Amino acid sequence: MTSVLQRRQFGLIAGILQIIFICAFAKLGRYIDPIDDSKRVFSGTDYPLFQDVHLMIFVGFGFLMAFLKRYGFSAISVNLLLSAFVIQFAILLRGCLSDNFKNTGTFTIGIPEMISADSSCAAVLITMGVLLGRLTPVQFLLLAFFETAINVCVEFVVVNVLHVNDSGRSLTVHTFGAYFGLAAALVGHKKNVMEMDEHGGIHHSDLFSMIGTLLLWVFFPSFNAAIQEPEDARHRAIMNTYLSMASSTVTTFILSSWVDQLGRFNMIHIQSSTLAGGVAIGTAANAVLYPSHAVCVGVISAFLSVMGHAWLSPRLERTFHIFDTCGVHNLHGIPGILSGLLAIGFAYFYDPREYGKTLNHIYPYWEPLNKTHLILNSQNGALIGDRNRVSQAKFQAIGLGFSLGSAIIGGLITGLILKIRVWNQVDDPNIPHGDVNYYAPSDVNFLSKYKHAQEQQQLREREQMHEIY
Amino acid sequence: MTSVLQRRQFGLIAGILQIIFICAFAKLGRYIDPIDDSKRVFSGTDYPLFQDVHLMIFVGFGFLMAFLKRYGFSAISVNLLLSAFVIQFAILLRGCLSDNFKNTGTFTIGIPEMISADSSCAAVLITMGVLLGRLTPVQFLLLAFFETAINVCVEFVVVNVLHVNDSGRSLTVHTFGAYFGLAAALVGHKKNVMEMDEHGGIHHSDLFSMIGTLLLWVFFPSFNAAIQEPEDARHRAIMNTYLSMASSTVTTFILSSWVDQLGRFNMIHIQSSTLAGGVAIGTAANAVLYPSHAVCVGVISAFLSVMGHAWLSPRLERTFHIFDTCGVHNLHGIPGILSGLLAIGFAYFYDPREYGKTLNHIYPYWEPLNKTHLILNSQNGALIGDRNRVSQAKFQAIGLGFSLGSAIIGGLITGLILKIRVWNQVDDPNIPHGDVNYYAPSDVNFLSKYKHAQEQQQLREREQMHEIY
Amino acid sequence: MTSVLQRRQFGLIAGILQIIFICAFAKLGRYIDPIDDSKRVFSGTDYPLFQDVHLMIFVGFGFLMAFLKRYGFSAISVNLLLSAFVIQFAILLRGCLSDNFKNTGTFTIGIPEMISADSSCAAVLITMGVLLGRLTPVQFLLLAFFETAINVCVEFVVVNVLHVNDSGRSLTVHTFGAYFGLAAALVGHKKNVMEMDEHGGIHHSDLFSMIGTLLLWVFFPSFNAAIQEPEDARHRAIMNTYLSMASSTVTTFILSSWVDQLGRFNMIHIQSSTLAGGVAIGTAANAVLYPSHAVCVGVISAFLSVMGHAWLSPRLERTFHIFDTCGVHNLHGIPGILSGLLAIGFAYFYDPREYGKTLNHIYPYWEPLNKTHLILNSQNGALIGDRNRVSQAKFQAIGLGFSLGSAIIGGLITGLILKIRVWNQVDDPNIPHGDVNYYAPSDVNFLSKYKHAQEQQQLREREQMHEIY
Repeated sequence: MTSVLQRRQFGLIAGILQIIFICAFAKLGRYIDPIDDSKRVFSGTDYPLFQDVHLMIFVGFGFLMAFLKRYGFSAISVNLLLSAFVIQFAILLRGCLSDNFKNTGTFTIGIPEMISADSSCAAVLITMGVLLGRLTPVQFLLLAFFETAINVCVEFVVVNVLHVNDSGRSLTVHTFGAYFGLAAALVGHKKNVMEMDEHGGIHHSDLFSMIGTLLLWVFFPSFNAAIQEPEDARHRAIMNTYLSMASSTVTTFILSSWVDQLGRFNMIHIQSSTLAGGVAIGTAANAVLYPSHAVCVGVISAFLSVMGHAWLSPRLERTFHIFDTCGVHNLHGIPGILSGLLAIGFAYFYDPREYGKTLNHIYPYWEPLNKTHLILNSQNGALIGDRNRVSQAKFQAIGLGFSLGSAIIGGLITGLILKIRVWNQVDDPNIPHGDVNYYAPSDVNFLSKYKHAQEQQQLREREQMHEIY
Repeated sequence: MTSVLQRRQFGLIAGILQIIFICAFAKLGRYIDPIDDSKRVFSGTDYPLFQDVHLMIFVGFGFLMAFLKRYGFSAISVNLLLSAFVIQFAILLRGCLSDNFKNTGTFTIGIPEMISADSSCAAVLITMGVLLGRLTPVQFLLLAFFETAINVCVEFVVVNVLHVNDSGRSLTVHTFGAYFGLAAALVGHKKNVMEMDEHGGIHHSDLFSMIGTLLLWVFFPSFNAAIQEPEDARHRAIMNTYLSMASSTVTTFILSSWVDQLGRFNMIHIQSSTLAGGVAIGTAANAVLYPSHAVCVGVISAFLSVMGHAWLSPRLERTFHIFDTCGVHNLHGIPGILSGLLAIGFAYFYDPREYGKTLNHIYPYWEPLNKTHLILNSQNGALIGDRNRVSQAKFQAIGLGFSLGSAIIGGLITGLILKIRVWNQVDDPNIPHGDVNYYAPSDVNFLSKYKHAQEQQQLREREQMHEIY
Repeated sequence: MTSVLQRRQFGLIAGILQIIFICAFAKLGRYIDPIDDSKRVFSGTDYPLFQDVHLMIFVGFGFLMAFLKRYGFSAISVNLLLSAFVIQFAILLRGCLSDNFKNTGTFTIGIPEMISADSSCAAVLITMGVLLGRLTPVQFLLLAFFETAINVCVEFVVVNVLHVNDSGRSLTVHTFGAYFGLAAALVGHKKNVMEMDEHGGIHHSDLFSMIGTLLLWVFFPSFNAAIQEPEDARHRAIMNTYLSMASSTVTTFILSSWVDQLGRFNMIHIQSSTLAGGVAIGTAANAVLYPSHAVCVGVISAFLSVMGHAWLSPRLERTFHIFDTCGVHNLHGIPGILSGLLAIGFAYFYDPREYGKTLNHIYPYWEPLNKTHLILNSQNGALIGDRNRVSQAKFQAIGLGFSLGSAIIGGLITGLILKIRVWNQVDDPNIPHGDVNYYAPSDVNFLSKYKHAQEQQQLREREQMHEIY
């Protein structure tokens, strides 16, 4: 029989944190003044864009991770739990970093804050994709706690201090989340207990996973555009993502059939590489000025992603024993780094004059292009700096390096913390199921829907005989 | 062999009602004047909010009720049928209660009327959740007919006569729908024929059900905000629902693992209690002024909902023989009443001056706060009344009581009507399947996709042997 | 063992086309000027409407075609592939037909162009529904190539040359797509290899298919309204589609139970005929002025659609050997023609004065109603023509005939091209599976997720024994 500590651990930790959240909201949180800011709410249709992102986080990511036959429901449940937890925590953390907080001691919440909170969930869910099936709910909760804390600070430095352009958050969400998870997996170096699950025929769980893939595919333009303004930048972000994803999808099918000895399509590529285009265009989604450039980005990202699946991942597993349950490295990691590198190029090679008078919304601190531009900025309160193509490109590179480095270091430390035996651990799947390892990664042991222990016993027996899946 | 009456009953009744609808629309229904009102359509993004609600009704509720292994498709089909029926009926009924109808003899239809029609569907679908699997399509159609008629009148009294604030319709939709269904179930006191279905392992039908849960979860802010104006009230409704649901979800997981002897999560709690926060904040979603209050509402609602599942429901079944197929009482019933009670408190304890000049949009008939406020209201045509915190709180209480009472009485009467043996009844599942009880709650007997009776026979035999599920 | 040509065919053809696309975008494609046009982007909420359509194309159509037990994942994958391919191709083709291209040698891309590109996908996906399971990816790609080329030209003639009102694109998308596919199927006259799949009990694949049906159902108003302006026309398009679909759904259930000898509902009717109302109102969605007319359209369309399923389709299969995998003819074909015929009637019988000053947005080239109207049009740049009710009705009829004729001719030619043995062909399902016919319509042979050939072999053996479905 498991100890009380093991059985009540999750409830205690989550409960304490939720109580802290309530106190913090009571002391620090306020809504934006309805009269002053109400115009802002829907103008530019922030709310519909928020709803698209919201759907991606809770339904898209949730079902994307439901492809494991015996872990689908658990994956969706943990996805929901972590997102609901991170939303509250991220709003509090961002609020404490806001200017408003420095001045008044309280911070305000509006639709834009809700969009940012949801994007923080994305980073945690990407990390969850790497470790799926190898952590217990308690560990996932602690992971979400530490990762969100680090992620919000990193984002603050990259965007507000270094003034790096990271439109679709490919640096601070995709790259960060992916390498944070890979670093944690390296420390944990626990074999993917779900590997046997990978085998077997095309199963309904793959169709459920496809719901996630398609929802992420459809709403990716909103994700990359949600926090963009003014309209022209948001407009470019939408169209660039749209074209980049279209070309990356076609390219994925081409390469997938090319690497298969029978010329067939590989389901795993379809489920993940088709989204690489959205990630790769992310950082510069508001900056790319020509459709053909967006299409090329999609082609390159799909190439790298499929190669990652077909060539790199097996080697990573063999050599470094890094097990990546959902192939996150090929969907978020590699395309994320590509996105950072491309952003350096776009900052360096584009003629800033092409952006017209909204240049400083894309690259704050850019030196005024001319006299009128200077006056304009000082009027609309835009930042006036001394950056040019070279210096901005440098800062973009620093932003990429900082995100990557902090993700790896943070991931390693978090991975070590999660290994402490005081937390519930996923047990060895080779040991036959029983009350002892009720946290084995199987829906039935992970979840309950029965009142009587007897039913549970029958169920567990049937499960041993693999009847019910 | 079943009688012709039994087999043609649905077609006849539904056909007659549809013909009546056509005549009524021809005589009474007009579209709003495109020139005058076109501005209203999309300003404040009514249409995107309508689409969110529309998706909740048809996909969200539909799949939420698809968790029964052998009844999933039937549940979604009946959900679609009743919604399409109620939409037409509710538009006609509301139209006949509108001022425009009193004056001109015709009523007008626009996006806001479409939103209201969809919210009427919600009440019927909640009731359907209680009785799922125990009524035939004919009975469900009659249920929808009577419930919608009563519900629209109740809503008119609560909102337009008593001038109660019911932002997210938690009184007139959630509370009404839940207790209407429970009262009807009490009269029917038919054992839940699907109970055996409850047993068995985690099944794909649970993943389908999760689609419904997550869609309702994601779009709940839109549901509570759709009919709100002006912007500041809609803004508050969105943010309050967002925070309340986040905290109720975390709390649900905490309590769910707490009440399980092995500290696991209970799927049924995850599928329903996570939504309790949206229901509980509903009535006052536009009135709550502080984030921390919304977070607290979520915590309380999740606590009551999980306790309802774990402690109350089994007792209700044993003592009163009330069988609640989808656990609606814990998702809509208890949180709905909580929402009504909280609304009383918020009306009483908040300082009305905090609402600023839009106070009368939230509480019509409130006494003017000062001279300018009086002038302002008389200018923008807002109602000018004599209510203060005490009297408004009284009216909120009356609204809750009226909704609850009329739901129970209406449910009892409707339940008795549906018991009349002239309508097709669901037969005893213990009797082996056959043409006689082709309405037994099984997809295969409920639906057909075969041209030849022979195939049907084979199928039925295989079904007996439980091969095909 | 299959030849290299067979195995690499898809990669080669798709790769060459993608490279051509990149070059074409680089030479011809530009984004709209952010400063001039940024207002246009979201005003009238173009983007939320685009997202609704986007969701219909990728998730709605994809899952609608997932009802085949052993082909579900393949259907969704090909749906994604073709859509991503058509999006790029359609933007290029439309661009080359635009005035901007004639004048400047380049064309511009914005949200409206994205909506049009998505609607071109719909035509191809409808055709795919007819031929589902009987073409290889290479053949589907070529089909998409030829059909899109013809479809864009037909649309240009119907809308820009004949100035026909085709609000929801029922002529150029639904009718065209359906009859294009039926003509191609007639030439191919390949028996539906999936027929055996049709049999068997209600299966999860039917629930997946229902996801598609419901998403199409919910967002159909957006599809019919997306390209409409000004607001009043868009407003009418939304409300007409909403009411038409509600009544067509109720009518579908009525007739479905009427044609079943046991009075049950037929799943196939529920999955397709419930959508007929949206197709049938399409062409005139912006023109119908009375709610009752929209309701009647829904009733008629459902009647024809259910009769098509129950009476016409079996005869078409027997007599003409036209096999229609998804019953597209009854969902898009018949209602599409109905839509064209109704549009003729609405143009002829309505009094043009009822449209007020936005008449020329619905029927360009209409003769000015009076002096002020004339001045108004010349001011707001609307076209001024000489059409009246009779001549407009004539042109609507010509538009219907032209769409239908070009679809049938184009379909026949394309069908012949696809029969050339140089392209990979779907093999006879009666031959046991093997490497030879790796394109037999089964997910397992169509897709791969295995690294080792050995696994594949085991899998194929298990599949022979029908263990894994």
